[in-house]
Amino acid sequence: MKLRLFAALLLSTSAPVFAAENVDRDMVNRIVDAGMNHGQVIETTAYLSDRIGGRMTNSPQMRAAEAWTQSKFKAWGLSNVRAEGFEFGRGWSIDGIAVRMTAPRVLNLRAIPIAWTPPTPGAVTAGVIVAPMKRERDFAKWRGKLRGKIVMVTLPNDGSEPAKSVFSRYADDDLRKLDTYDQPTTVDDATADRGLQRRLFAAKLDAFLAAEGATAWVRAARTDGGLLFGEGSGFRADDARRVPGIELTAEDYRRLARLAKTDAAPTLEIDSRVRFHDADTKAYNIIADLPGRDPKAGYVMAGAHLDSWVAADGATDNAAGSAVVMEAARILAGLGVKPKRTIRFALWAGEEQGLFGSLAYVDRHLASRPPETDPERLKAGSYAYWTRSFPITPRSGYGELAAYFNLDNGSGKIRGIYAENNAAAVPIFKEWLAPFAGMGATTVATGRTGSTDHVYLQSVGLPGYQFIQDPLDYPSRTHHTNLDTVDHVKAADLRQAAVIMASFLWNAANRDAALPKMPLPTKPSPTNPFAYPDDDE
Amino acid sequence: MKLRLFAALLLSTSAPVFAAENVDRDMVNRIVDAGMNHGQVIETTAYLSDRIGGRMTNSPQMRAAEAWTQSKFKAWGLSNVRAEGFEFGRGWSIDGIAVRMTAPRVLNLRAIPIAWTPPTPGAVTAGVIVAPMKRERDFAKWRGKLRGKIVMVTLPNDGSEPAKSVFSRYADDDLRKLDTYDQPTTVDDATADRGLQRRLFAAKLDAFLAAEGATAWVRAARTDGGLLFGEGSGFRADDARRVPGIELTAEDYRRLARLAKTDAAPTLEIDSRVRFHDADTKAYNIIADLPGRDPKAGYVMAGAHLDSWVAADGATDNAAGSAVVMEAARILAGLGVKPKRTIRFALWAGEEQGLFGSLAYVDRHLASRPPETDPERLKAGSYAYWTRSFPITPRSGYGELAAYFNLDNGSGKIRGIYAENNAAAVPIFKEWLAPFAGMGATTVATGRTGSTDHVYLQSVGLPGYQFIQDPLDYPSRTHHTNLDTVDHVKAADLRQAAVIMASFLWNAANRDAALPKMPLPTKPSPTNPFAYPDDDE
Repeated sequence: MKLRLFAALLLSTSAPVFAAENVDRDMVNRIVDAGMNHGQVIETTAYLSDRIGGRMTNSPQMRAAEAWTQSKFKAWGLSNVRAEGFEFGRGWSIDGIAVRMTAPRVLNLRAIPIAWTPPTPGAVTAGVIVAPMKRERDFAKWRGKLRGKIVMVTLPNDGSEPAKSVFSRYADDDLRKLDTYDQPTTVDDATADRGLQRRLFAAKLDAFLAAEGATAWVRAARTDGGLLFGEGSGFRADDARRVPGIELTAEDYRRLARLAKTDAAPTLEIDSRVRFHDADTKAYNIIADLPGRDPKAGYVMAGAHLDSWVAADGATDNAAGSAVVMEAARILAGLGVKPKRTIRFALWAGEEQGLFGSLAYVDRHLASRPPETDPERLKAGSYAYWTRSFPITPRSGYGELAAYFNLDNGSGKIRGIYAENNAAAVPIFKEWLAPFAGMGATTVATGRTGSTDHVYLQSVGLPGYQFIQDPLDYPSRTHHTNLDTVDHVKAADLRQAAVIMASFLWNAANRDAALPKMPLPTKPSPTNPFAYPDDDE
Repeated sequence: MKLRLFAALLLSTSAPVFAAENVDRDMVNRIVDAGMNHGQVIETTAYLSDRIGGRMTNSPQMRAAEAWTQSKFKAWGLSNVRAEGFEFGRGWSIDGIAVRMTAPRVLNLRAIPIAWTPPTPGAVTAGVIVAPMKRERDFAKWRGKLRGKIVMVTLPNDGSEPAKSVFSRYADDDLRKLDTYDQPTTVDDATADRGLQRRLFAAKLDAFLAAEGATAWVRAARTDGGLLFGEGSGFRADDARRVPGIELTAEDYRRLARLAKTDAAPTLEIDSRVRFHDADTKAYNIIADLPGRDPKAGYVMAGAHLDSWVAADGATDNAAGSAVVMEAARILAGLGVKPKRTIRFALWAGEEQGLFGSLAYVDRHLASRPPETDPERLKAGSYAYWTRSFPITPRSGYGELAAYFNLDNGSGKIRGIYAENNAAAVPIFKEWLAPFAGMGATTVATGRTGSTDHVYLQSVGLPGYQFIQDPLDYPSRTHHTNLDTVDHVKAADLRQAAVIMASFLWNAANRDAALPKMPLPTKPSPTNPFAYPDDDE
């Protein structure tokens, strides 16, 4: 090798070989200053969580959040601020809950009404019966035994011995393990149908309990430690529940179960004061734009779901993500800059019931699929089946969306981003992340992640991405629970996330070349051809 | 060295050089069979916890526990079953608690009345004021500002990031670290007086709040995660509190504090339904005997405190320990054996307020010290000062107590025992533990442990010991909290503890030689001669 060639090689490799990104580091500095020195993201999170509170889709709290977030977008100078409605169902809210054991001794219990179950007619008092049921075939054992009873439907377990710390951040090794290509697969029909039946079971249990004349039903929280969740289904008027349901802490539930086994069955007094709201059965996505210079260049988008469950205030799930999206809008609008592409900000509704807000957006603006006709599948919600329906027909707006960035893994700072198996996106994201290495954001994970609002975009071949966030205590104790309060949000983490979100949007909106897209899916990904169904679950 | 002598040495060292203990392994087998195959310890724990519930000293629940435990001792054939009374103060119990934020939005809060504070006169509604106070000099800032307010007295912190697992067992290395001689020391007078002032602060705060016309006061739970504690003081009629106090979960407290800082101060509605019980101000230790063959041989004793706090059911603190002591009694009485020395079983009252039950026993039966005359010290409780009072005058029963074994570190299995710096006890305990190595009990820790009912015995030179137990989730989440329920008790652990307790009692009661005792203390242990007081805490 000649020395001159070697020197030339040295020069050419001193920058990464994929060095095509023009990351404007002066703009990074301006964004970081706006987010770190002049930020409002923790105040926004606190307003949504402390002041408005838990925001179940179509509840009065969610309506308040829809109005407040639009007013903020407008005040910050965003354009085309709007609420895009889609049919959802009834709202539901809790006015109060009081549950006491009244025999064999008096004790306040920790409880939450189960979402979308009806209120009790005032305080009702009845004996409990432990009648574990998790499939239809369990009904036979209890037929004729439940009249006038408060039915405890969970099989008590032995409690947990958690081995991991409640609070954690990703170590380098954890991040490396996330960087794995995910082979696309589809669950086979038998497995999907069993999942469908599980989702339909809540309605069948309710119908059975109503037919048997049960007074109310009680389930145990799925985790120890005094946590409460309260998730439920049945928000559509044609899928309404008839029997009041409450969730007790695992500890309170098992105390009742032990007493019922060894002593006389305890008596409970339940006063579940909940309300339905059906004046408007539409849910609303809140959308706001920062218009681009080039009307033909399309748009990039950031999103997070504004709705939550209501065991607490929906702070880490997902006021935090919503506040980061709003903060990115505030920062970019406040800098008075005009991107090439429009930057759109979306706050989704109905995420907790099946990502319905982002699905409505995709269906309206981006691509259609043959509609579901099976009534059971429709009743169970479209999450599982919509993505199995082919062909996909792009709508006129399909080509306009250049990239979508989602935030919905709690309130931890951003440690990187999932590239969703998009090999062409990996080197671009690496360069966009580079200015934030000192803030701990370094990882571009090749593979996919799910369970939030980018998945319907991905399912139609559009570039929807979700960031990697430090776990903190989100998986262990705040996700959907009565501990999902602002206490478990770190202001420093959210400021970091907001500046990275704003910077990604800016880079995506101003990139000279188009952003890489995946081929249009034309059929479901492969199933396991050797699978035998396991019916014994 | 002659070969014959060497062989003799080999023989003599093939057993441990301290091989003086005759551990009857057939008796071990019988005890283990009675505890493992025919055990009742988890049922006893559950009755005390689930059926009777939290047992604050002199509460109706504690009275029920006093009666039930005596009936069990009698039913199992124990002798001289009795309740030994000592002057304590008023009982107190919770009938119900309901706390809601009523403005700026409606939300149920998680709360517990603070022990021995008075009830609210029905539901009271008032605005909150965040007025952190932790010493008398903090009062000046708030004088004139508290009338008609609900006063939030805790300075809100930033929340926790717990790094350790909630649930743990001791690894070998943890046990090795416990095996350390503890140099005896005494805290200097200045430090002791600061501790005294901290204990007296609760009464001073109450007097200040009453004088200022506060409606109620609120403090934050000292740990995150929805835990509640509710400990309080002021159980003596001459030390009564005047202002209702409640504790909120840290999360609920901080939400109020954030809203008060950034929005209008929230309004709370508090309905604290508590009751005092002063028909009998005496507390009672429950004592039962398994009489020995030799009336001159004295006695050995096992003990645990039966009283608890009432945020939950007092299961791990200390129904579990009480049930183990009771189970040891049941096992030994049920085997129909007669030990050389009497075996005495004690269930103490008033432990949570200052180890008062075991102190009363020591003072009545074992040794006296010059009584405290300082009125402030008397008001603060005798825990800190009794052990500083000299000379110790042994009573006639002093020489009769050969050994005392306590259990009060949650519900984890026994991993060993603290030898309390008694070098002569170490080899004896090692041999007594040997049959239980396969159950995980192997460690004789040289040093001391505190905070429970063996310390007053130790303070007068008598052999009081406490076992080492696996932590489980006792230090992290059940100790004094609303999670102290039977769910967090492991039946297998308690069975193991019961058979080891029974075996230790049997060995101690039948040992040919006297058990080793320490020299009678004649003056306080040394203080740090170079200490300067730190007044800025």
